[in-house]
Amino acid sequence: MNPLDLEEFKRQGYMMIDFLTDYYKNIEKYPVLSKVEPNYLAKKLPSSPPFQPESIESILEDVQQHIIPGITHWMSPNYYAYFPSSGSTAGFVGEMLSNGFNVVGFNWLSSPAATELETIVMNWLGKMLNLPKCFIFSSNFECGGGGVLLGTTCEAILCTLVAARDEKLSQIGKENIGKLVVYCSDQTHSALQKATQIVGIHAQNFRVIKTKGSNFFALSHESFLSTILLDVENGLVPCYLCATVGTTATNAIDPIKLLCNVAKDYDIWVHVDAAYAGSACICPEFRHYIDGIEDVNSFSFNAHKWFLTNLACCCLWVKDHSVLRKSLSTYPEFLQNINSDLKEVIDYKDWQIPLSRKFNSLKLWIVIRSYGVENLKKFLRNHVEMAKTFEGLVRKDERFEIVVPTRFALVCFRISPSAINIDNGSEGCYYIGKNMNDGYLVNEVNRKLLDSVNGCGKAYMTHCEVDGAFVIRCAIGSTLTEEHHVNMTWKLVQEHASFLLGKKIEFR
Amino acid sequence: MNPLDLEEFKRQGYMMIDFLTDYYKNIEKYPVLSKVEPNYLAKKLPSSPPFQPESIESILEDVQQHIIPGITHWMSPNYYAYFPSSGSTAGFVGEMLSNGFNVVGFNWLSSPAATELETIVMNWLGKMLNLPKCFIFSSNFECGGGGVLLGTTCEAILCTLVAARDEKLSQIGKENIGKLVVYCSDQTHSALQKATQIVGIHAQNFRVIKTKGSNFFALSHESFLSTILLDVENGLVPCYLCATVGTTATNAIDPIKLLCNVAKDYDIWVHVDAAYAGSACICPEFRHYIDGIEDVNSFSFNAHKWFLTNLACCCLWVKDHSVLRKSLSTYPEFLQNINSDLKEVIDYKDWQIPLSRKFNSLKLWIVIRSYGVENLKKFLRNHVEMAKTFEGLVRKDERFEIVVPTRFALVCFRISPSAINIDNGSEGCYYIGKNMNDGYLVNEVNRKLLDSVNGCGKAYMTHCEVDGAFVIRCAIGSTLTEEHHVNMTWKLVQEHASFLLGKKIEFR
Repeated sequence: MNPLDLEEFKRQGYMMIDFLTDYYKNIEKYPVLSKVEPNYLAKKLPSSPPFQPESIESILEDVQQHIIPGITHWMSPNYYAYFPSSGSTAGFVGEMLSNGFNVVGFNWLSSPAATELETIVMNWLGKMLNLPKCFIFSSNFECGGGGVLLGTTCEAILCTLVAARDEKLSQIGKENIGKLVVYCSDQTHSALQKATQIVGIHAQNFRVIKTKGSNFFALSHESFLSTILLDVENGLVPCYLCATVGTTATNAIDPIKLLCNVAKDYDIWVHVDAAYAGSACICPEFRHYIDGIEDVNSFSFNAHKWFLTNLACCCLWVKDHSVLRKSLSTYPEFLQNINSDLKEVIDYKDWQIPLSRKFNSLKLWIVIRSYGVENLKKFLRNHVEMAKTFEGLVRKDERFEIVVPTRFALVCFRISPSAINIDNGSEGCYYIGKNMNDGYLVNEVNRKLLDSVNGCGKAYMTHCEVDGAFVIRCAIGSTLTEEHHVNMTWKLVQEHASFLLGKKIEFR
Repeated sequence: MNPLDLEEFKRQGYMMIDFLTDYYKNIEKYPVLSKVEPNYLAKKLPSSPPFQPESIESILEDVQQHIIPGITHWMSPNYYAYFPSSGSTAGFVGEMLSNGFNVVGFNWLSSPAATELETIVMNWLGKMLNLPKCFIFSSNFECGGGGVLLGTTCEAILCTLVAARDEKLSQIGKENIGKLVVYCSDQTHSALQKATQIVGIHAQNFRVIKTKGSNFFALSHESFLSTILLDVENGLVPCYLCATVGTTATNAIDPIKLLCNVAKDYDIWVHVDAAYAGSACICPEFRHYIDGIEDVNSFSFNAHKWFLTNLACCCLWVKDHSVLRKSLSTYPEFLQNINSDLKEVIDYKDWQIPLSRKFNSLKLWIVIRSYGVENLKKFLRNHVEMAKTFEGLVRKDERFEIVVPTRFALVCFRISPSAINIDNGSEGCYYIGKNMNDGYLVNEVNRKLLDSVNGCGKAYMTHCEVDGAFVIRCAIGSTLTEEHHVNMTWKLVQEHASFLLGKKIEFR
């Protein structure tokens, strides 16, 4: 038993590369959205672990036969669901390197390169995003700004919310946690709701401010202010705002500058979640979406979404990391060391929830070096162009409508109400509904269209609901997506729509 | 610009396998503990990202020249610090597969195989550990027991603490969070302190119960009870206990059964953290250390420590996952789907802090299948044997003492006070100290010994402090460690001790 026999390591490593190369080669043959039924896998695999070793060949055979059918293929060029998870060769080999070293970089000493490369890469990225100096590491590690790699935006929000909570409680007393208020819009990611639950802020002080279609679902600073005023009047204490650049549903953009102007009067921590759209802000033409970022306390985006970095990789910058560390530090005896004592190094354990952490910066560093800033911009712009193409195709078909202007590479569309006829007893009518208002019926038709497209396996999109409307989202950004995929996908939507709109369907 | 060109993917993938094979081949040539100075890397790498792409060859050249010197080599056979991070071929190729698929498995639908394989593997592991049925998934996914893969023990503790907090607050009212009390011993991992901070339980209600050397630093159930009684008398509400099987410092074992007997009278959530030692409990001869596990609410261990699974992989079981989900669930519109609506599937997003998650079970599944239960036991026992060997060597040298009986594969030792002479003005005396009690001096001599061994680069151990004594920890468990490494390491310790004990050193 030698679990790291080098010949075997090499043989299996090569084999896995070959397996994945074949997987990518054949990826379009698989239904993008898995078609398996719940509990399918328990019927294929033994319910107890093997006593004796099994060969990697037989394991890979099972992966091919039983696992791949149960995968929804996020790497498929016809994957347009949620937001992309754009893996790449550089991201993949970066992960290999990190997994091969297998270091646990909780503090500087446990692997200095892991910490130092992370600070360097976060500064690189900060410069690419043209972040103001207040977010860039200086040579003083005791306070000031800087960046850290976390797993996901959920963690970025949780960590900053804890810091904001503790800062506020240090002023008003920890017994007053029931007074703290957290703000967001009805478009904000559910990560904030979860973080609020976790840190013990009361659910009734979680303010979800309504947005409007006429404002493209952005959070209005007037609504923000009036909500605050009411809270303050009621003796509550405003604490934290999560603004979003590129919301999950429709890529709405909250106006950072205006919101910060309101927030600063009440000493509210402002976090900007640009999980998806942050990547695009390395292009000058998109940078204006984060104008005002110098006024926020923290800013994050996910390099694993649309930045060619394999899952998971969330980039968080804070203006004053001493506040973060105040809430998240522990310094048990077994970790004590002279470099930490002297505060001459960064210990990233104090910037995150877990103690342990992988050497995550390697993959981001290799992504940036392998492609270079210029090509990364090209990559992003290419998806934006494809989204424009797709939007143009939608607009040309009068049965459809674009629900919000396409931003970045997300197209939100649906079958237009005017394309749907309600039963009037004649031949040319398609839908029969009972006690049903038009809005519901339009939604159900669009839901049927989405299910129909996804069910055929050739593409996968997801939905959102805004202003009561069921909307189909086509998020372009998979690494393998090319223009012909986008064109094929649109034809597919049209075919399924034609079939559906030509049918008489009864809703009950 | 094709970031997933298949020929290039294959070429770079092979190259990375070759690079890592060479790394492992040469790993003994590198100092185990990195010798770089703080801020060394900024001097080697550009402060701005490259505009143009760079070749993987030049990147790997930089890894070799600049990164590897800054790595503390956790994969080295002479790595004995903290606890091991035992990567393996199976763990590594499992990670490759997970990273290659790059699926985001937040809910069942987003990749059914990711969820289903995880439930299967958690049941496999549960059976290997002989966990009672209450922790094993049944076919009913609405409530009952089951397991989940998280990143780290910190997350396992945080998630269960949130659940315990919310359950208690639902009884006493959320305005009474200031009354909740969390219990642990002075040997419990700092993860609990951090989790307590995060969930908003007051620092003054974090009870650190003192342990004794005479009890091998286990948490006494009598002390636990008397602490509770005092709290209850003061109107506080006991909430959560973190017991440990295999503490970080000395591998102390808290008595689960006795503690649970106390806890149940006060309806206290009991979590057992067996981060390191849990692995060994698949061997019948160690299983008794978790006797009583049927009485706890949750149990976790890290497969990335001593179970051949590359970082990160924490296995958590809970007896009633509906409680966990009650605290950690969100169900935004964009994730809504019929399978989740029908509650016929597990959505692991509701068992953890982040929304997104990788296909983590692949690596654990491949580890278990590649080695088989029998060989996994052999692997663990082999380390335990080597630790016994090391302990025997220490005991044979009368200058040293074993501080606590060796359990699992961690040896705690130090230079014995009797081997250290304090200056009396004659030739044969070695240490000169001013205003210094013997205990301090003994500690400083041992600290010097550890620094001296680590500084030579041939091995890396860390320390703990128990009962005021500075203790050297030799944690055997690196995948590549063989008996000759352990023997060499002991000789090294002896040599450095001889040199140190033969020297006249002045402490100020």
